[in-house]
Amino acid sequence: MSKIYNLAQIKGILNSLQPIQEIEKGFMAYSAGKAVIPPVGEMLFEDPPGDIHIKYGYLVDDDYYVIKIASGFFESPATSRYTSDGLILLFKKGTGELVCALLDECHLTNVRTAAAGAVSAKYLAPKNIGCIGVLGAGTQGRMQVEYLAPVIDCKEVMVWGMNQNELDDYKKDMEPLGYRIQTTLNTEDITDRCNLIVTATPSKSPLLSADQIRKGTHITAMGSDTPEKNELDPRILQKADIVVADSISQCLSRGEIHQALRVGLLEKERIVELGNVIARPELRRISEEQITIADLTGVAVQDIQIAKAVFHALKLKEV
Amino acid sequence: MSKIYNLAQIKGILNSLQPIQEIEKGFMAYSAGKAVIPPVGEMLFEDPPGDIHIKYGYLVDDDYYVIKIASGFFESPATSRYTSDGLILLFKKGTGELVCALLDECHLTNVRTAAAGAVSAKYLAPKNIGCIGVLGAGTQGRMQVEYLAPVIDCKEVMVWGMNQNELDDYKKDMEPLGYRIQTTLNTEDITDRCNLIVTATPSKSPLLSADQIRKGTHITAMGSDTPEKNELDPRILQKADIVVADSISQCLSRGEIHQALRVGLLEKERIVELGNVIARPELRRISEEQITIADLTGVAVQDIQIAKAVFHALKLKEV
Repeated sequence: MSKIYNLAQIKGILNSLQPIQEIEKGFMAYSAGKAVIPPVGEMLFEDPPGDIHIKYGYLVDDDYYVIKIASGFFESPATSRYTSDGLILLFKKGTGELVCALLDECHLTNVRTAAAGAVSAKYLAPKNIGCIGVLGAGTQGRMQVEYLAPVIDCKEVMVWGMNQNELDDYKKDMEPLGYRIQTTLNTEDITDRCNLIVTATPSKSPLLSADQIRKGTHITAMGSDTPEKNELDPRILQKADIVVADSISQCLSRGEIHQALRVGLLEKERIVELGNVIARPELRRISEEQITIADLTGVAVQDIQIAKAVFHALKLKEV
Repeated sequence: MSKIYNLAQIKGILNSLQPIQEIEKGFMAYSAGKAVIPPVGEMLFEDPPGDIHIKYGYLVDDDYYVIKIASGFFESPATSRYTSDGLILLFKKGTGELVCALLDECHLTNVRTAAAGAVSAKYLAPKNIGCIGVLGAGTQGRMQVEYLAPVIDCKEVMVWGMNQNELDDYKKDMEPLGYRIQTTLNTEDITDRCNLIVTATPSKSPLLSADQIRKGTHITAMGSDTPEKNELDPRILQKADIVVADSISQCLSRGEIHQALRVGLLEKERIVELGNVIARPELRRISEEQITIADLTGVAVQDIQIAKAVFHALKLKEV
């Protein structure tokens, strides 16, 4: 009989995991060609507007395959109130038996996404980070910062948002966790003061321009995961010394890299894949002056890794 | 909290449903453009060999969307022992909330597939059926016959299989249900004696040739649902008076129609969609002499319809 776990049970074991390490292993297997990841399944809704994504696949050497379903709906065409939800299913290879259903309500997607941000910063950011800059005061704007803790020694955060209310909420939530939070409504404050920047918005037009970006900056662009979303002026990718994709094949049609390719400001040959950056030090930053960009669109191999880790931890707890 | 139902619970309410009517409504909505059905998601495995399919979609006027996962694995590359499994998830539009998970272990796929066979026969078969012919003595070979009962008044069945053992088992299972079963190892016995033929095998090469097919025969070809599988000589489709697809877009790349198109023996313009055959009597058989073919590859709209019906019946039982 397959096991069904709810969000409370999943949250109960998350502290016992090492998500950054799991996600690293996943990206390495993916870039080494040891993962089978079909194209993302997608379905759109008009009324109320929304979309679902189905991400699925398996590692060649593994006993399981994983299917993740994630949804996002706006309350109505008029409002911007957004609900995300989702679950992950783990199946046994060779029989198709459902091993477990993780009814995580999208939380594990948030975890694996934040962990990928930490992996990007670990291998690409400059050595000394004075201030972490965050665009977007939502869930990922918070979790990206929290998940940086094991890899980036910096408690100074500057956050940009669309209004002071959401920024005040962000400050209220994050300061008790030990961060010193400055807020701004001007993105230039972010690019002036921060050399590690995370963009975590659903924007469909660039929030940062190329002339804003100082030497020695690393940007993790994780907000854009569809063909339409776009947080960075494509000239930033043209200007960057290193452009990294979580998945080159996915980034050809989604995210910032897709946007820059589309307008001819980036050559496909310049794109490096994150799993290769982890495996091969020579692909990383070679000076503190370089500009590096990691474009994260979210790859099923992250869902596979986090689902397996959560399942094993839950099983261990039951023994 | 979402509801999880197991196979026993699902089987417990199946008798209260009218699957043929539900599937008819689904095909009509589909052919009328009132269903959103993305391309089938597919993932292949090499060791052990197998595949999974993800079929999903929604009706425009409905409150739910549905995702169905079905798997099939061979025990090993050497043996032909096959295991199928699967489940169906029902979600609420507008929030993405999981409404229920039907852990049906593929049974509802069998039900909706058999119901589609009945729909095809209801609208396409000749008036008087002397003997129902079945190719394939597996689960669908049985269920297709059982689901014909409400629409075809005939208890004579002739079944063809690869060996006498499986045919004897078939006879043993089906006779207690009130059928008179003849068995054969020669497909010509089927085409000589039966004017309603159901092909329900996983064959990758034709089992019936065009000169075998007599006037006034209807064939429901439901075994072939991938680009490779093939039960009918493409010349049968060339010879047929009416060629019906459950989904024209799916049949362009899967099933018998795909095979006939590929070798240039069928013109796309000749294909009629099942939902239109149900809605428009003028698209059906106009004489008892015509040869008609229904090519069923399995459409997500069937999964949507059966999942909703099962969920509503289960909910009703709880009240």
